[in-house]
Amino acid sequence: MAMQKKQRAKAKYTGYVATSIDGRIASGSHSGVNWTSREDWNFFQKSLLKYDAIIAGHNTFMVAKKRLEKRNTIVITSKVSTVKTDNKVVFINPKNTNVKNFINKKGYKKVAVIGGGHIYDFCLKNQMLDDIYVTIEPFVFTAGVTMFQGAYFRKYRFSLESIKKLNKNGTILLKYKNGN
Amino acid sequence: MAMQKKQRAKAKYTGYVATSIDGRIASGSHSGVNWTSREDWNFFQKSLLKYDAIIAGHNTFMVAKKRLEKRNTIVITSKVSTVKTDNKVVFINPKNTNVKNFINKKGYKKVAVIGGGHIYDFCLKNQMLDDIYVTIEPFVFTAGVTMFQGAYFRKYRFSLESIKKLNKNGTILLKYKNGN
Repeated sequence: MAMQKKQRAKAKYTGYVATSIDGRIASGSHSGVNWTSREDWNFFQKSLLKYDAIIAGHNTFMVAKKRLEKRNTIVITSKVSTVKTDNKVVFINPKNTNVKNFINKKGYKKVAVIGGGHIYDFCLKNQMLDDIYVTIEPFVFTAGVTMFQGAYFRKYRFSLESIKKLNKNGTILLKYKNGN
Repeated sequence: MAMQKKQRAKAKYTGYVATSIDGRIASGSHSGVNWTSREDWNFFQKSLLKYDAIIAGHNTFMVAKKRLEKRNTIVITSKVSTVKTDNKVVFINPKNTNVKNFINKKGYKKVAVIGGGHIYDFCLKNQMLDDIYVTIEPFVFTAGVTMFQGAYFRKYRFSLESIKKLNKNGTILLKYKNGN
């Protein structure tokens, strides 16, 4: 009987984005998400309970600090050099620390990625975005922070898994899976 | 019996946008839309036949010149000072000419707005975008031209009129109405 080395199960990463019709997630990098519908907010908050850990950028963390401090939160930031821990919150500089290895060592299986635009881009580039929930609120902003803030154009293919109307104002929730 | 002054009916403006999940419409301002699905392309080309005139920016016009030359096309551009006419194509600088008045004088009733990002923004700001068809192709680009290229953040409210799946790859077509 062959011995089989037990492999550490990789974490699964799920993004949550609330966006305007034109792909903007905030007016500026320090502004909150108080423009989203109650239905999306409820969906988002309820969803987060299912995750072992949450990944956020520093701006997003600051905006939602009170809530995130209660959870296993990984803050991706250039403001630290080595890993810095503050109770349940860990600050990591991805230039110096492999975030994926860190998460696997911690044994987290389900990780939620909650933004902002640089973090979504970082996770997508590093195979840390297996699927993504996109809530489209019925607004056009014409300017502001884009959903993904990448340095250059690249074509990542997704497949649509579901569409759901969240309210009668026209807020919709799309679920996409990375690749196809 | 009271005399009633006959009012010139205003034109109705409908936008057509094909976008990635993250609100990008092209890799660069001179690139075409060869990344969209056949289903969207067919919908778009068939739809345009219903319009009296088409509004496009100069880059969009150059990319689709052969097709647009056959139609009443209004090219919004800073490259001319006064109105310049070339068969069915009219070049207008909105700094010097009121585009809306021009369209009303021409008697156009149904006008399609086909981009790019500066033109969608111009039309939205000038009450020349009554409704908009948004095709979302199942890609993330992380960079590139944004759907609306506005100078500052503003919240325009739309209402969702319909959702349609265009193919099994997950291309969806949303129809929004300006205001609510």
